[in-house]
Amino acid sequence: MKIAVDAMGGDFAPLEIVKGSIEAVKAFPHMEIVLVGDEAQIHKVLSEHGEADNPRISIHHASEVIEMNEHPGIALRKKKDASIVVATRLVREKQCQAVIAPGSTGAAVAAALFGLGRIKGIDRPTIATPIPTPEGVTVMLDSGANSNSKPKHLVQGAIMGYNYARLMFGKENPTVGLLNIGEESTKGNDVVLATYKLLEQLKTIPFKGNVEGRDIPKGTVDVVVCDGFVGNVVLKFAEGLVGVVTQLLKEGIKESGLFAKLGALLVYPVFKKLKKRLDHTENGGAPLLGVNGVFMICHGSSRSKEILTAIKIAGELVERKIIENIQHSIEEEGAITYDDVD
Amino acid sequence: MKIAVDAMGGDFAPLEIVKGSIEAVKAFPHMEIVLVGDEAQIHKVLSEHGEADNPRISIHHASEVIEMNEHPGIALRKKKDASIVVATRLVREKQCQAVIAPGSTGAAVAAALFGLGRIKGIDRPTIATPIPTPEGVTVMLDSGANSNSKPKHLVQGAIMGYNYARLMFGKENPTVGLLNIGEESTKGNDVVLATYKLLEQLKTIPFKGNVEGRDIPKGTVDVVVCDGFVGNVVLKFAEGLVGVVTQLLKEGIKESGLFAKLGALLVYPVFKKLKKRLDHTENGGAPLLGVNGVFMICHGSSRSKEILTAIKIAGELVERKIIENIQHSIEEEGAITYDDVD
Repeated sequence: MKIAVDAMGGDFAPLEIVKGSIEAVKAFPHMEIVLVGDEAQIHKVLSEHGEADNPRISIHHASEVIEMNEHPGIALRKKKDASIVVATRLVREKQCQAVIAPGSTGAAVAAALFGLGRIKGIDRPTIATPIPTPEGVTVMLDSGANSNSKPKHLVQGAIMGYNYARLMFGKENPTVGLLNIGEESTKGNDVVLATYKLLEQLKTIPFKGNVEGRDIPKGTVDVVVCDGFVGNVVLKFAEGLVGVVTQLLKEGIKESGLFAKLGALLVYPVFKKLKKRLDHTENGGAPLLGVNGVFMICHGSSRSKEILTAIKIAGELVERKIIENIQHSIEEEGAITYDDVD
Repeated sequence: MKIAVDAMGGDFAPLEIVKGSIEAVKAFPHMEIVLVGDEAQIHKVLSEHGEADNPRISIHHASEVIEMNEHPGIALRKKKDASIVVATRLVREKQCQAVIAPGSTGAAVAAALFGLGRIKGIDRPTIATPIPTPEGVTVMLDSGANSNSKPKHLVQGAIMGYNYARLMFGKENPTVGLLNIGEESTKGNDVVLATYKLLEQLKTIPFKGNVEGRDIPKGTVDVVVCDGFVGNVVLKFAEGLVGVVTQLLKEGIKESGLFAKLGALLVYPVFKKLKKRLDHTENGGAPLLGVNGVFMICHGSSRSKEILTAIKIAGELVERKIIENIQHSIEEEGAITYDDVD
């Protein structure tokens, strides 16, 4: 298996990206890494780590980089030789099986969309994020690829999330819920009202109706489908809340008594772990589902550890044939009548 | 000061509502309570508590009740003598200064809207919820009155939230942020993109630009403006997350070592408190801002303690002249050009 890594993406490129890739080939003997980006810079880091001659790590030169603050669409048109564009091309041309994309999420989504195209029957790709629950995870999607999701995008999200939860989290027949502000089918905004009717038509995927915000951390259903705006706000809110709580615990919980202070010290590591599980970075990124290839979106602040994890997840997604499974599900579901709700 | 309490609203009416009202007149010597609902039932509870002759508690008979599961609009048209309708009328007729509304949020919002009307310049009322932060609170609104908020509703929300934060949480010149999925003004869905441009036009309210989900628990700004769908999801997600964590702590944190277990026991009360602060019920409900009168929305599962707190908050909102302050702010801001973004 060969993974294309955008070695120039993110705040700590190429150093941390290359380091993560070196760790990956050590950890996963069946993997080869193609580092995409400025050959001289990448070679320098490899040499410094004594890995310049590692036969399982190669360099594919790309002369340009898309920066974090660039407009994705404009940058993509202008920079034909950007590292993320070239890495994506390697997958399209079947030279590699997956892309690791640290850096600008917008540019990554655009590069994936234009470079790989969409799976037939999928109109927009979606970012899937596992949220920890007491018994496992809830897969929430979309967590930020689209900020104006329409009903059909949510339905396609349900199909993709179902397969992702099934293949990656050992759920045999994952249940799907629609994120809403009440359980009744008459609740919600125009988009979710229309989506509910479409989800009810799914033949192969167990739709459990509306769920509310509280059901995400509870794990009421395995997959929660929502608009990318809502999902992104929820994800960042969770990160913020856990971050604040961890900080408070670290400070010994201001104005608390001695016992609570002691308790805080003792329980702090548990929260630090929870924070890590929620953090994009620590999770090694999230898969962009719906494009014709395995594509991992990593945080701009990714360090070697996150790159290592992202490569591991990418490998599993390839091995478990996520693309083929989504294709199969879409075909199984057949034509869904979107007409009156677009 | 006279407060109209819908004594028939919610799961534990009239018992818990009447009990909360009795506690309120004891706690606040300047207050009188008018219990609205079935005279016989209310009188029975008052008698059982030896308060039938309390001169500061009176009963205003109403023959009907809107149940939790009824469609708000239909119920309101059908049940002209519903307790929530009659309680609202007492405020419209200046016999009382505020309404306490436990029970169906939808019916309460509808009764307030039709019974009190809107403040001039406000198109839709909004529910404001204080979210605890390390240093105080972030006021989030709308947290569930509207699930299809338009830009102008969000701008009006900013004006209302600013005044609520200023009057109730001792902030001198509260800052306002727009909930979005990135800090740049070019980020977000169509509604927030249009809202951003309108908020920039505010003359008297310090708009600090976009904020993200993580800024709510951090307290980056004093007021966070968002669509009611998003706000409701975030609020319930927070309740759920804190609930799950509290539960895990209570169970001694599964699979943890002895120290973490001990820590969990010690820190549990702190989380129980956090959970209470997030919980609608424990907060005594949230004000519905934008209608022509002080109106407290309480949870359907409200017990006496929540009713007591709601009455206290309602009293403060009346004393601090929330309605007049919002009116003044709207006038100060003058005409905002909504034309091209509606």
